[in-house]
Amino acid sequence: MSNIKLIIEYDGTNYAGWQVQNGSQKRTIQEIIEKALQEILQEKVKVTASGRTDAGVHALSQPANFKTRSRLSPVKIKDALNALLPEDIAIKRVSRADEDFNSCRSAKSKLYRYLILNSRLKSAFLCRHSWRVLHPLNLKLMQSEARVLRGRQDFKAFCASGSSAKTTTRTIKKISVKSIRYQLSAISYPLIAIDIESDGFLYNMARNIAGTLVEIGRGRFKEGDLKKILFSRDRRQAGPKAPSRGLFLAKVRY
Amino acid sequence: MSNIKLIIEYDGTNYAGWQVQNGSQKRTIQEIIEKALQEILQEKVKVTASGRTDAGVHALSQPANFKTRSRLSPVKIKDALNALLPEDIAIKRVSRADEDFNSCRSAKSKLYRYLILNSRLKSAFLCRHSWRVLHPLNLKLMQSEARVLRGRQDFKAFCASGSSAKTTTRTIKKISVKSIRYQLSAISYPLIAIDIESDGFLYNMARNIAGTLVEIGRGRFKEGDLKKILFSRDRRQAGPKAPSRGLFLAKVRY
Repeated sequence: MSNIKLIIEYDGTNYAGWQVQNGSQKRTIQEIIEKALQEILQEKVKVTASGRTDAGVHALSQPANFKTRSRLSPVKIKDALNALLPEDIAIKRVSRADEDFNSCRSAKSKLYRYLILNSRLKSAFLCRHSWRVLHPLNLKLMQSEARVLRGRQDFKAFCASGSSAKTTTRTIKKISVKSIRYQLSAISYPLIAIDIESDGFLYNMARNIAGTLVEIGRGRFKEGDLKKILFSRDRRQAGPKAPSRGLFLAKVRY
Repeated sequence: MSNIKLIIEYDGTNYAGWQVQNGSQKRTIQEIIEKALQEILQEKVKVTASGRTDAGVHALSQPANFKTRSRLSPVKIKDALNALLPEDIAIKRVSRADEDFNSCRSAKSKLYRYLILNSRLKSAFLCRHSWRVLHPLNLKLMQSEARVLRGRQDFKAFCASGSSAKTTTRTIKKISVKSIRYQLSAISYPLIAIDIESDGFLYNMARNIAGTLVEIGRGRFKEGDLKKILFSRDRRQAGPKAPSRGLFLAKVRY
């Protein structure tokens, strides 16, 4: 048996997330990739990703792996997958992995990026890939408050209620809030990127942190509030969950 | 009566083009904007654009105008439109225009941009907004050949058959083929932008020129062939029509 590793990029707009979800009309990324692999390898395979992404969430780099009896080369698998998969799912890399490599269990940390279009200018091209916030955001305050979240802490306040996680303690290795420009022909859009690298993410943690930082940026929460929210361990104290369309799984380290 | 001018940006992916087209299941941009204006102004209006764009074609800046009895300010109209219109149609500017301004008839020139993703790398994010050509393109040859099209010429070879245009002579003021990079997080994609500014475009002219330039770039046509194609005035000599998803109406001058 070979253990094959994939690096997948996808625009999550038209999908019900990575994993099959009951009751959704939309297809899932996992389902579509497994179906394509079955056609290529003439064998049923189960594809494991580094983690599920929710409906509407994108991936710049989602690692996944599967075991197969097929002797098809990684290059051939890559080309065949890209030919069969829809345009909004792209296979960036295919390689052989060690027998015991598991995309999910072997992951050391994940980096999520959240994009905010902070502008009164509506954009027909950025709307699928960012959350538009009309109210001007105080970037400096978002930056200084975000530092509070670094390190090993209990992130229960940012975990969706009803989550089955055994512990709500995680280690945020890096968190940054920066201003970037997106140039589209003659028009330049002001985007804010929130990058969070952690050894693990609780359910909705990245979106709940992004939503809370936006509340800080627009002045609904003030200096020092983020620390209080974190220590409260109470989801109701934090800000609302930011919409899925602004979230990208950017990098997974092993 | 006021004459109101709009500047509209749209992602054409989900639309059957600007103008109502019989037999299409998809909605048109004109239809959606007129419906929104009727709701805002409490009056039926007819919106004239600088020109129709085909199904799937995008606009970075599509000027349009309409006459109304309403005294609503341009700012109010803009905000109301942006609130009512779907996310992939954005109103960039609203202003009062001279009584005799007509977006279509007053246009002096139009600039179209065609984007090609010249890469074996599939991109889940660029697929809606560019044509992916896997074969490496000879940019220098595309650039030197494109010069042949400048000036006042008969572009019949690049006009869709069945077009009702009275004359097929137009003046291409500028045409350029350049390499640009699109940076998406850690990955940089090589794009080729074909910019064509003309006093008018025949039906499918921009896409037929783009398709022909790609045939030159990939070596199916050789140096000197574009001149022969132009002079042949025969659509069958030119290359295939490039897909709509790479085409953007970028600027209209008055």
